[in-house]
Amino acid sequence: MGRTLYYPDVITDVRIDIGRLQRRLAELAAIGEIEGTEGSSRLALTDEDRDGRDLVVAWMRELGLTVTVDGIGNAIGVMPGEGAPVMCGSHIDTVRTGGRYDGNLGVLAGLEIIETVQTAGIVLDRPLAVAFFTNEEGARFAPDMLGSLVYVGGMPLEESLAITGIDGATVGAELERIGYAGAAPIPGPTPHAFVELHIEQGPVLEVEGITIGAVNGVQGISWTEVEVTGQSNHAGTTPMSMRKDPGYVAAACAAFVRDLCDELGGNQVGTVGRIELKPNLVNVVAATATFTVDLRNTDEALLQQAEQRFNDFLQATATAEQCTVTTRSLARFEPVQFDPEVVSLVARTAGELGYSVKELPSGAGHDAQMLARVCPTAMVFTQSQNGLSHNPAEYTASEDLEAGANVLLHTMLQLASGSG
Amino acid sequence: MGRTLYYPDVITDVRIDIGRLQRRLAELAAIGEIEGTEGSSRLALTDEDRDGRDLVVAWMRELGLTVTVDGIGNAIGVMPGEGAPVMCGSHIDTVRTGGRYDGNLGVLAGLEIIETVQTAGIVLDRPLAVAFFTNEEGARFAPDMLGSLVYVGGMPLEESLAITGIDGATVGAELERIGYAGAAPIPGPTPHAFVELHIEQGPVLEVEGITIGAVNGVQGISWTEVEVTGQSNHAGTTPMSMRKDPGYVAAACAAFVRDLCDELGGNQVGTVGRIELKPNLVNVVAATATFTVDLRNTDEALLQQAEQRFNDFLQATATAEQCTVTTRSLARFEPVQFDPEVVSLVARTAGELGYSVKELPSGAGHDAQMLARVCPTAMVFTQSQNGLSHNPAEYTASEDLEAGANVLLHTMLQLASGSG
Repeated sequence: MGRTLYYPDVITDVRIDIGRLQRRLAELAAIGEIEGTEGSSRLALTDEDRDGRDLVVAWMRELGLTVTVDGIGNAIGVMPGEGAPVMCGSHIDTVRTGGRYDGNLGVLAGLEIIETVQTAGIVLDRPLAVAFFTNEEGARFAPDMLGSLVYVGGMPLEESLAITGIDGATVGAELERIGYAGAAPIPGPTPHAFVELHIEQGPVLEVEGITIGAVNGVQGISWTEVEVTGQSNHAGTTPMSMRKDPGYVAAACAAFVRDLCDELGGNQVGTVGRIELKPNLVNVVAATATFTVDLRNTDEALLQQAEQRFNDFLQATATAEQCTVTTRSLARFEPVQFDPEVVSLVARTAGELGYSVKELPSGAGHDAQMLARVCPTAMVFTQSQNGLSHNPAEYTASEDLEAGANVLLHTMLQLASGSG
Repeated sequence: MGRTLYYPDVITDVRIDIGRLQRRLAELAAIGEIEGTEGSSRLALTDEDRDGRDLVVAWMRELGLTVTVDGIGNAIGVMPGEGAPVMCGSHIDTVRTGGRYDGNLGVLAGLEIIETVQTAGIVLDRPLAVAFFTNEEGARFAPDMLGSLVYVGGMPLEESLAITGIDGATVGAELERIGYAGAAPIPGPTPHAFVELHIEQGPVLEVEGITIGAVNGVQGISWTEVEVTGQSNHAGTTPMSMRKDPGYVAAACAAFVRDLCDELGGNQVGTVGRIELKPNLVNVVAATATFTVDLRNTDEALLQQAEQRFNDFLQATATAEQCTVTTRSLARFEPVQFDPEVVSLVARTAGELGYSVKELPSGAGHDAQMLARVCPTAMVFTQSQNGLSHNPAEYTASEDLEAGANVLLHTMLQLASGSG
């Protein structure tokens, strides 16, 4: 961090081979294939994940990369060469009903870039490396982004190995079982820089007709579960003035979240995606209402302000309704700022390659936000059709995949050609 | 209907025996007893309901009443005498986790009144009768208040016998099975008047410290199920301006129901007791939201106004959010007005017996609203502790039960002593 990067500002006419990249995407997607779709199911550290790992590691070896696997199962393939590598990568685990591109694109584009460099005979000042990190999705083991968190020293290895998944299995036992409890040290070696190519998983690029996103950071996330307790009553016989209705409190709070985001504007988003009433019957005033609030902002101070204003409204509304409230934080991450110089390099490279580009924050979490703790980092986004992700119907057009991989290629070439 | 009632406005010092009434309540509650509680489980036309029926019919016969059972299983015990009887009654079926008083009180108080009249040797101009009607709760077979509906000719017998319950059994087959497919004609004979004693099942009397409710009618009921369809999206990556969030539409509508009731005032009540989001996850903008709206008013024009205003708000909010809406009526009943003269008689009788009394509407449905179609009808309410009902913890203090039964006694005595 704080390191100065040097690189020659030259774009050559070398380009990736989109056919080769698409073939690798299809071959990996066939492992854990969800029949009748383009998607896959490879929950972290399952047999399907192991088969996916084996395939990608075999490809790394075919390209002559030195492959290391560390104690949390992160696999890194490095080209021969001197000095800290310029690394790209992402993850190859999926949610239970995953798409073909989420994570996989960043890893397989890394292989494609290395093969392109080798085929073109390009000599670099630093080696390139491509990594896949364990359990990015968090769909089997919490927290998500586990492998990259452990890689940068954000969680002790022993603690991570003891994590129990939704099926009762532990990370450590599953790593042993599938043969990915590696010997490489934790925390891992610090790259010279890190760049992650990923689909946007949102609608902004598509709606605005822009090809490339130069991702300047990741939104801070605040997840809160709220339980409101009132008095269950007959919906016909209880006058409005005598009600203690937690369903009303939940509804008023959910509507307030929208008003709050409209008023704060900017990058503030807010969602009430889960509401559960008990007993949940047409003619009964609920006894309890449980709901979640997801607030996100790229600015920590604004995010705290949103949290405070939501909580003020919740408490005042519950008090007026004579209901009691308990809240529980489900997740809280501060916003992450990517390295401004690498972000600018991505944007400039995209422009020089002739692609439209805009800087934007990521609304989802990514391994890159962990790597940003230890080295200059940025991300490249490509469009996601209809913003759809975590769904077998996830889709990005071939020309967008090609554009994203070419931006990644030339960003990495420049980062690896300097003397910094 | 429209008939004029005549009765001597005289309250004697005859009173019911609360000990005897309580013993019958306990003995009936022991059938289908929910262990460790005072409540019972006697779903309509089950073995438990049959055992309860057998007990109450045996009591009717012990009192020398002529018992008839009609084709839908309604049982009526009539004292010897000339002319159309003054009838009281209610139901003895319960919800799955029912209380001791709901329905049972009105039936067993009827037996107690008849025994009191017989013991005191009172001679009346008309016989008294006590009835229990089939499947009032609707917990096993829809619709609720089925027996009294069929009794007054509101549904053909054949149609009612073909109704299939939640367990796949039909009303007709179950009546045959438990021996309550009777021979008495449908529609049943029209009583001179009908009075139903029932617990309030709401908090008003208790909160206001009043002993007796003179029930002047039953609220009209409008139940609507609303399904809102939007676009499921990632809660982090989807800007607020690009959302089509059915969860927001549901929340805004539920909050609006409260505002609407506050604004309309009077007897307008409204409840959103059921909300279901899909997929119902913290970090996903919902794809669909399904919720119910329960609107009630004692005035049909005002109820229609509430329905209209809710629907206007729903459509406008969904349109602004680019969501689509489908609505489905789950139930719609117009308000019922009880006979003003019988309502006044109940109120005056309570006052002359020294009990505090107020006229109020019923927020729940009762057999009396069906009888009101064919004869002068009213109801007597006693307090329900905490407004609790449909729950084994349902409770009414003994002195309130006694007060209610004495008001029923003297209301019926006066109705049966006139020449109308």
